[in-house]
Amino acid sequence: MSETFDFTIEELGNRNIKSPITMSTVQGDLMANYVTDDQFIRLNAEVGVGAQASIERSQVLECAGPREMIYFMPAHVHAGIVSCGGLCPGINDVIRAIVRCLWYRYGVRRISGIRYGYKGFLPDYQFAPKELNPDVVDDIHKLGGTFLGSARGGGREVGKIVDAMEQLNLNMLFTIGGDGTQRGSLDIAEEIDKRKLKIAMVGIPKTVDNDFAFIQKSFGFDTAVVKAVEVVTAAHMEAHSQINGIGLVKVMGRESGFIAAHTALASHEVNFVLIPEIPFNFEGYNGFLRHLEDRLKSRKHAVVLVAEGAMQDFLIKEKKTDAGGNLKMADVGTYLRDRIQGYFDEKKIEINLKYIDPSYIIRSAPATPGDSIYCERLGNAAAHAAMAGKTKVLIGLINNEFVHLPMKAAVSHRNHVDPEGSLWRDTLDATHQPILMVNRFDDNYSDPAPAVQN
Amino acid sequence: MSETFDFTIEELGNRNIKSPITMSTVQGDLMANYVTDDQFIRLNAEVGVGAQASIERSQVLECAGPREMIYFMPAHVHAGIVSCGGLCPGINDVIRAIVRCLWYRYGVRRISGIRYGYKGFLPDYQFAPKELNPDVVDDIHKLGGTFLGSARGGGREVGKIVDAMEQLNLNMLFTIGGDGTQRGSLDIAEEIDKRKLKIAMVGIPKTVDNDFAFIQKSFGFDTAVVKAVEVVTAAHMEAHSQINGIGLVKVMGRESGFIAAHTALASHEVNFVLIPEIPFNFEGYNGFLRHLEDRLKSRKHAVVLVAEGAMQDFLIKEKKTDAGGNLKMADVGTYLRDRIQGYFDEKKIEINLKYIDPSYIIRSAPATPGDSIYCERLGNAAAHAAMAGKTKVLIGLINNEFVHLPMKAAVSHRNHVDPEGSLWRDTLDATHQPILMVNRFDDNYSDPAPAVQN
Amino acid sequence: MSETFDFTIEELGNRNIKSPITMSTVQGDLMANYVTDDQFIRLNAEVGVGAQASIERSQVLECAGPREMIYFMPAHVHAGIVSCGGLCPGINDVIRAIVRCLWYRYGVRRISGIRYGYKGFLPDYQFAPKELNPDVVDDIHKLGGTFLGSARGGGREVGKIVDAMEQLNLNMLFTIGGDGTQRGSLDIAEEIDKRKLKIAMVGIPKTVDNDFAFIQKSFGFDTAVVKAVEVVTAAHMEAHSQINGIGLVKVMGRESGFIAAHTALASHEVNFVLIPEIPFNFEGYNGFLRHLEDRLKSRKHAVVLVAEGAMQDFLIKEKKTDAGGNLKMADVGTYLRDRIQGYFDEKKIEINLKYIDPSYIIRSAPATPGDSIYCERLGNAAAHAAMAGKTKVLIGLINNEFVHLPMKAAVSHRNHVDPEGSLWRDTLDATHQPILMVNRFDDNYSDPAPAVQN
Amino acid sequence: MSETFDFTIEELGNRNIKSPITMSTVQGDLMANYVTDDQFIRLNAEVGVGAQASIERSQVLECAGPREMIYFMPAHVHAGIVSCGGLCPGINDVIRAIVRCLWYRYGVRRISGIRYGYKGFLPDYQFAPKELNPDVVDDIHKLGGTFLGSARGGGREVGKIVDAMEQLNLNMLFTIGGDGTQRGSLDIAEEIDKRKLKIAMVGIPKTVDNDFAFIQKSFGFDTAVVKAVEVVTAAHMEAHSQINGIGLVKVMGRESGFIAAHTALASHEVNFVLIPEIPFNFEGYNGFLRHLEDRLKSRKHAVVLVAEGAMQDFLIKEKKTDAGGNLKMADVGTYLRDRIQGYFDEKKIEINLKYIDPSYIIRSAPATPGDSIYCERLGNAAAHAAMAGKTKVLIGLINNEFVHLPMKAAVSHRNHVDPEGSLWRDTLDATHQPILMVNRFDDNYSDPAPAVQN
Repeated sequence: MSETFDFTIEELGNRNIKSPITMSTVQGDLMANYVTDDQFIRLNAEVGVGAQASIERSQVLECAGPREMIYFMPAHVHAGIVSCGGLCPGINDVIRAIVRCLWYRYGVRRISGIRYGYKGFLPDYQFAPKELNPDVVDDIHKLGGTFLGSARGGGREVGKIVDAMEQLNLNMLFTIGGDGTQRGSLDIAEEIDKRKLKIAMVGIPKTVDNDFAFIQKSFGFDTAVVKAVEVVTAAHMEAHSQINGIGLVKVMGRESGFIAAHTALASHEVNFVLIPEIPFNFEGYNGFLRHLEDRLKSRKHAVVLVAEGAMQDFLIKEKKTDAGGNLKMADVGTYLRDRIQGYFDEKKIEINLKYIDPSYIIRSAPATPGDSIYCERLGNAAAHAAMAGKTKVLIGLINNEFVHLPMKAAVSHRNHVDPEGSLWRDTLDATHQPILMVNRFDDNYSDPAPAVQN
Repeated sequence: MSETFDFTIEELGNRNIKSPITMSTVQGDLMANYVTDDQFIRLNAEVGVGAQASIERSQVLECAGPREMIYFMPAHVHAGIVSCGGLCPGINDVIRAIVRCLWYRYGVRRISGIRYGYKGFLPDYQFAPKELNPDVVDDIHKLGGTFLGSARGGGREVGKIVDAMEQLNLNMLFTIGGDGTQRGSLDIAEEIDKRKLKIAMVGIPKTVDNDFAFIQKSFGFDTAVVKAVEVVTAAHMEAHSQINGIGLVKVMGRESGFIAAHTALASHEVNFVLIPEIPFNFEGYNGFLRHLEDRLKSRKHAVVLVAEGAMQDFLIKEKKTDAGGNLKMADVGTYLRDRIQGYFDEKKIEINLKYIDPSYIIRSAPATPGDSIYCERLGNAAAHAAMAGKTKVLIGLINNEFVHLPMKAAVSHRNHVDPEGSLWRDTLDATHQPILMVNRFDDNYSDPAPAVQN
Repeated sequence: MSETFDFTIEELGNRNIKSPITMSTVQGDLMANYVTDDQFIRLNAEVGVGAQASIERSQVLECAGPREMIYFMPAHVHAGIVSCGGLCPGINDVIRAIVRCLWYRYGVRRISGIRYGYKGFLPDYQFAPKELNPDVVDDIHKLGGTFLGSARGGGREVGKIVDAMEQLNLNMLFTIGGDGTQRGSLDIAEEIDKRKLKIAMVGIPKTVDNDFAFIQKSFGFDTAVVKAVEVVTAAHMEAHSQINGIGLVKVMGRESGFIAAHTALASHEVNFVLIPEIPFNFEGYNGFLRHLEDRLKSRKHAVVLVAEGAMQDFLIKEKKTDAGGNLKMADVGTYLRDRIQGYFDEKKIEINLKYIDPSYIIRSAPATPGDSIYCERLGNAAAHAAMAGKTKVLIGLINNEFVHLPMKAAVSHRNHVDPEGSLWRDTLDATHQPILMVNRFDDNYSDPAPAVQN
Repeated sequence: MSETFDFTIEELGNRNIKSPITMSTVQGDLMANYVTDDQFIRLNAEVGVGAQASIERSQVLECAGPREMIYFMPAHVHAGIVSCGGLCPGINDVIRAIVRCLWYRYGVRRISGIRYGYKGFLPDYQFAPKELNPDVVDDIHKLGGTFLGSARGGGREVGKIVDAMEQLNLNMLFTIGGDGTQRGSLDIAEEIDKRKLKIAMVGIPKTVDNDFAFIQKSFGFDTAVVKAVEVVTAAHMEAHSQINGIGLVKVMGRESGFIAAHTALASHEVNFVLIPEIPFNFEGYNGFLRHLEDRLKSRKHAVVLVAEGAMQDFLIKEKKTDAGGNLKMADVGTYLRDRIQGYFDEKKIEINLKYIDPSYIIRSAPATPGDSIYCERLGNAAAHAAMAGKTKVLIGLINNEFVHLPMKAAVSHRNHVDPEGSLWRDTLDATHQPILMVNRFDDNYSDPAPAVQN
C-alpha cells in the first residue's frame, strides 16, 4: 500500500439548514455533541521505525510479541498463573493460551496454576498449585468460569505471597485480574525488586465492565453483551406481549455504562438506558418518569436498561438517611422497579412491569469466538513478554495492536462512557431517549444543564 | 485523563538467549517476524482540533457523525437504499439503522428500498421499490439475508440507473455492497455530476471476506467467524473420533485468508491453515503433506482449514490444461480432499477424511450482537453523512472511529493477511504449523512454490 | 411390521444380591421405588378400528386430524384466536399454524386475532381485533412472546365475551391458555350452548410448568428447559470457580417440579433439586443443610435448584405469622439463600453463594425446533378439529399421538412429578441427592416433614 | 387420579361438507389419509400389575430401571463401553451416564472404554482401553463426537472380540451403535453363550436417522434437527434474497425421511420435501419440476429439502448404465441441483440456485438439553439392566417409558415415515406440497413412478 490518497471528502454544496437533531456544541455540558468537519482520525497509528524519536514517550506504546532475544532459559523456567476477582468470559482461554505458548513455542515444562486467586499463595489456605500442561487445558475454553478458581482479596499479604513465590521458585507470574489485582501485582513486583529477585510480573487486565484504563476493549466484554442482549430480548418480549408492558433489566457496570450502552445498540429494542456517567431526574417535566409515560402512551410498551452503578450517589445518600453509613452498593434495579410502579399506581395507570436481574448469567458464559480470538492473542503476548523479561507490564489492545502497558499507568484510573463521545451519541440514536433527562428551571423548562436537584 | 505517563517498560535484565521460536528478521520473505523493541503504536489516533494543519491530508480521515448544519431539507428528502452482491450478516441491521435514523432523527418520510441490487433500477426487471419506514423494518435484523433482495451485476448501466434515480426524484442513495458495487457507485456519482444533479452517494462497504481497503473490520465478519468456528468444531469432533481422522473445512476468502486465520485462532483446534497469501508446497520434505503425516503420527488426528482462494494460481493453471481457459475459481476443497486421500492411499496409511463445505451457511446468518452494534453505528453514520451532503463517500471504522472514506481510495485495492504481521504470527502460535511449508533446496521437486530466498 | 416377536428378556442367572441403591419397595412413602420384572408397557397404544368397542370410553381418546366431512363452509367462516395468561415459548408458532392451516388448507379468509387475552373481547378496553393472514404471521415464530398480546383475567365476564363473539359473528374460537383459561373457555362454551349458537370452542393447553392433566408434554416446555440449563450452567461455573462456591437457582414450577427435574437431568451439574412434590427438612441429621455441608466438604462446590413452588405450605405459614393472611407465593429463592447463608455463617464456614433468579428469561424465548414442530402440529390439529365442528375440546399429545381431549376432563386436575416414578428416580440418579431429606425419629425437630415410615 | 372421565367429544352438528383438503381414504396408495372418528389412542399404555397375564408377550415390553435384587457383585465388576459406527449427538452423554451410574450408584470401580469401536478389541490395532471414572467423563457431554473414538466394522471377528473380552475379564459390555453394531452384539452374545461365559450384553441403539425399529425416538435426533433447521434457515435466506432464488438442502436419512420431515415442520420454511418413502416424478404435469416452477411464479423463491436416500433406486439404476454395478449411494443433492438448473436453463428462466450440503455438521454437535436428558436416562437404564444380569437387550423409549427390548427384535427391521400417517400429513400441511407428485395417465412419461391406482 505505497500509494497515497487525498482523503478530502466531496460535498454537494453549502450546508445552510440547521439539523433537527438536538445536540450540543458545548464541551462539558454532558450532552452529546455534533461532529465538526475538522475532527480527524489518523489512518495509521503505527509509528515508523526511526520516526519514534520525535514522539514523546507518553504518546506511544511498545508493541507486544515474540522477541528474537529472550531473558529466561526455557528449560529452567517455572511459570505461575493466577486468576483473581470476579468471573469474566474468556479467563480459561487466556490460561490455555499462556500454557500452550510457553509449552509448545518455548519448551517450558513447569507451569503451575495458583488456586483461588492470591489466596492460593497463602499458607493458611493450603491450596496446592495445579500442574498445567497442554493436555490439562485442552478443552477448558469450552467452559465458563476459571479452571484455576478465583477469589477476591489476599493481595495485600505481599510478603507471604513473595515468600510462596520463592518457595515455588517461580520465574514469572501471570496475573489475570482487575485493577485491584494489578495494583496487588505492582506491590508484589516492588517486593520482588526489594528482594532482588528476577521474577517477571505480567498482567492480563480483566473487567467485564470494560472500563480498564487505556485498553480499547476488555476480553469477555463481547460475550457479556451477547448474554445481556438475550435478556433484553426476553424483557422486550414480555413488555410487548402485555398491556402497558414495561421490561426492566439491570446489567453489570459499577462505575461505567459500557455494557448497558452496547446492549442497547445491539438489541435495537431498548428505549431508555440509565448509566452512572449520565445524571437524570426522576420527576418533573423533563424527568425520566414523564418520558416513560409518554413512551407508553404512544407505543404501549417500553424497555428500560439500567447499569447497576447508576444513581449510586443518589441512592446511597437516601440509604444513609434510612439506615446510616452503608456504602455498599444499593440495588438500583429493585429501587427503579418500585419507583416506576409507584409512579403509575399513583396515576392509576395499569402497567405490567417485569423486572429481570440476570446477575451472574452475564459473566459466567464461555467466550464467544470473538473473545476467544482476543484471549488467545492476549495469552500469547503475555507469554512472549514474560519470556523476554518484561515486568510490571500489562498486555492490552490499543488502536488494534497488542501492546505493553506499564501496570502503574494502567491502574491509575478507569475508562468511562463519554457523554459527549460517539458511543453515547449512537446510543441516543438507537434509543431515541432525550439527550439529557434533567430539569433545569422546572416550570418553563428549556434543557441543557446537569445542575441536578431533586 | 489529563495526566500523562511515561510508557517505558521495565525489564529484568539483558536478553542474551536466542528465542527457540523460529521466526524471521527479514522483511519480505513471507515469514513471520520477531517484534523489536522499537515498534510502537500511538496511544491516541485522534488528531486534536488545530493540530491537523501540520498533518498531511493523506494521513488523516474525517470523522463521521451528525453535523450541526445539514444540506438537505428533511421534509423534502427522498432517500434510496440498495444492497448488492452476495449476502453478508448484518445487511438488514444496516438498512434498519439508516431508515430509523432518517425517520426518527431527521424526520425524513420518503425512503425507498431498491429491490435486487442495481437491477432494481433497470426498467427491464420491473421491480417496484419497497416503501420503507420504521414499522416495516422493525424486526428485520432478526433475519439473515437482505430484506430488499440483492443481485450481482447491473451496475454498468449507469445511464439507465441515473435515469431511474431522476424519475424517483432521489436525493440520496445508500449502497450496501462490495468494491465492485462501490466502483459502480462512483460511476453513478460521476454521471450525477455530469447531469449536475444533487444526489448524495454514500456507501457502506460490505465483504464477508473482511478485505476492504483501509477498513479495520467489515460488518458481518464476526458473525461469519462464529459460524465457521461451529463448522470447524464439527470437523474436529469427526477427526477426533476416528482412527487417523482428518477434518477438512473450506471457508470463504477469495483473495484473503482473514476468515480462515480468525477461525483458527477462535477454534483453537486447527492444525493447518492454508490461505491465498501464503504459498506452500504439497510434496517434499517441507511440504504440507509430510507435515500432515507427522501430525497424524504424533496426535492421531488433524484439522485442516483452507480458504477458497488458496492455491488458485496453481489450480487454475492445472485447469487450463484440462478444460482450457476457464478462469472460474477452482474448487480447492475437493482438490485438497482428493490429494490428501491419494497421498495416504499411496502410502497405504488408513485415514478417515471428512470434508465439510459449509458454503452459504456462513454468510446467511443473522448478525451477532457485536456485528449488530457495528451495523447500527454504520447505518447512523451513513444517514448523517448523506444529510450533510457528503458524497462519493464510504463509511468505515478506522482506529476505532467511524470515518468518511472517499470511494475512490476505498476501491483502489484490497487488504490482505500480512504474512509478517501479528495476525498471522498469532495464527502460527495457535496452530503450530511450520512458518512456511516451502521446500527451498529440494532439486527433485517443483510445486506451486514461490521463488523464496532468505 | 406384520411380524410379531416374543419380547421376553434373557437373564444371565438368578439375582441373589441386594442392590446397593437405596430405594423403596413401598408405594406411597414418597420414596423412589425399585422396578419389578412384571412392570410392562404396551408396544402399541393405538386401538385397532373395530377393537375399540371392547374398551371403555374412559380409557381411549379420539385421534385428532383432518376429517373428510367437515361442519363449516370454509368461505363463510370467521375464526378467532386468543392467547391468555403468562408467556410460554411457542405461542406464536401455534397462532401461525392455525392461521396457515385455515387459510391454505381450508380457504378460510376471515381470521381475527383477539388482543390481550379475554380482555380483548371486553368493550371497556377497546382493543380492536387484529386481522390475520399468512403474510402477517409469516415470521412471528422467530420471536418469543405472543404476537396478539396476552393478559390474565377477563374470562369471568362470560356474557360480555359471548356478546362480543356474536357481534364479530365468530364461528370458532381458538384459546391458547392454561387451565384457568380453559375453564373460562368451558363457561363460554356453555353460554354459547344456552344461546343456541354454533361456535366451536377449541383450546390449545399452555403451561410452561408442564403440568396440564393427561398431556404428555406441554408446548414450550423443552425451550424452558433449554433456558434453565443455561442458567444452571452459569451457576455451576460460579460455584466451581469459588472457594466453597454454592450456585442457587430458582426456576418456574408453582405446583410441580417438572422444569426443575428435567433441568437437573439435562445439565448433569445439579446436586440438589427441591420441588413442591417432595417434602424435606432443613435442619437435623437427614436435613438438606447437613447434606449440603457434606457435599461442600467432599467436593468444595454445590449447585442447588429450587422450583418456585417448593416449600410453599411452610413458607406461607411462616408468612402468615409475620404479615397476616397473605396467600401470595412467598419467594422461596431469597428465603433459601438467606437460610443457607445463615447456616454457614453460624458454623463460621466461609461460603460463596451466588443466587440467580432467571425469572422471565425462561418463558420469553422463541421456541426451539422441537417445540416448533410440536406447536405446528398442535395448531394444525386445532384447525382441523374446529372445521369438523368439534367443540369444548383441547388438543393434546398422549402416547405420541395428537388427540381430542374434553375440556372438562382436562381442567379437572394437574399433573405432578411422581415421587415414585421413573422421572424422579432418574433425577436422583443424576444428582445423587438423598432419596428423601426428612428426619424420621428426630424428636426435637419439626419442619414440613411428612409422617414417613418405611 | 382415580377419577375417570368419559372422553367422548361433543360436536356442533352433522358434518355434511366435503373437506377442501385433498387426501385419500384408501390405505396403501401412498397418499395421506383423512382421520376417522373411530381412530383411538389409549390414555394409558402401562399394563397394571396382574393384568399382564391376559396380554400376549408380543404386545408388551418390560420396563427398565433399577431392580432390588441384582446379578453382579459390584465390587468385582469390570464393565466395558464401546461406541461404533458414525457419530451422533449425545454419545458422550450416554457414556457419562453409564460410568456415573455404575460408579456412584453401584460402587463399580473398574470401567474400561474400548477405543474405536469393535476394532478396539482386535489385537492388530493395539488400542489400549481407556480407564473410565467420573472425573474423566465429567465434562465430555459438552463436546460432540465420541470420547472413546468410533469406527465402522470389526464386528464380524466375533471370536477375537470374545477372546479380548475374556482377557479383560469383562462382566458386561455396553454397545452404543446402530443396527449393524447391535447385530454384531447379538453374535458376540451368542459366542459368549457358547463359551458359557457370564457377560451381559446391553445395547444403546444409535441412529441419527431415527429409524431404529420400535423405538419412539433415537437419541441425538432432536439435536440433528436443530442443526438441520439452521441450515434450512440459511438456505431460505439465500433463496429469499435473490431473484428466483432456490435453496436446496440435503440432509441425512439413508432409508428414511425423519430428519427431513421434522426439519420441514420445525423450520416452517420448506416448500418441498423429498424422502425415500415417497416416490415422485421429475417431469410431467404432476411432476416435481412443474410444481417448483409454479411456486417460483407465485412466490419468487423456494426451498427444497431432500433426504440423502431419496430416489436411490432411480439414481442407482442410472448409475449402472453409466459406470456399471456400483451400489454406492449416489449423490442425490448434486443430481437434483443439476437437474433443476437444467430444467430452468432449458426454459430460459433465470434462477439463483444455492445448494448446501451440511454433511457432518448435523451429527457432530453436542446434544441439546432434550437429548441430554434422554441420554442420561438411557445410560442409567442400561447400567441398571446390566447389573441385573439382563442380556441381549437394548434400552429403548416406547410410549414414553424406558423399556428392555430384545436385540433380536430390534434389529429385525427399520422404521419408516408412514406416507399415510400423521407425521407426513402434518408435513404436507406445513409445506403445502402436493400430496403425491406422480403422473398417472401421462403416456409419454416414465420416471421412478410407482404403479399408483386409486
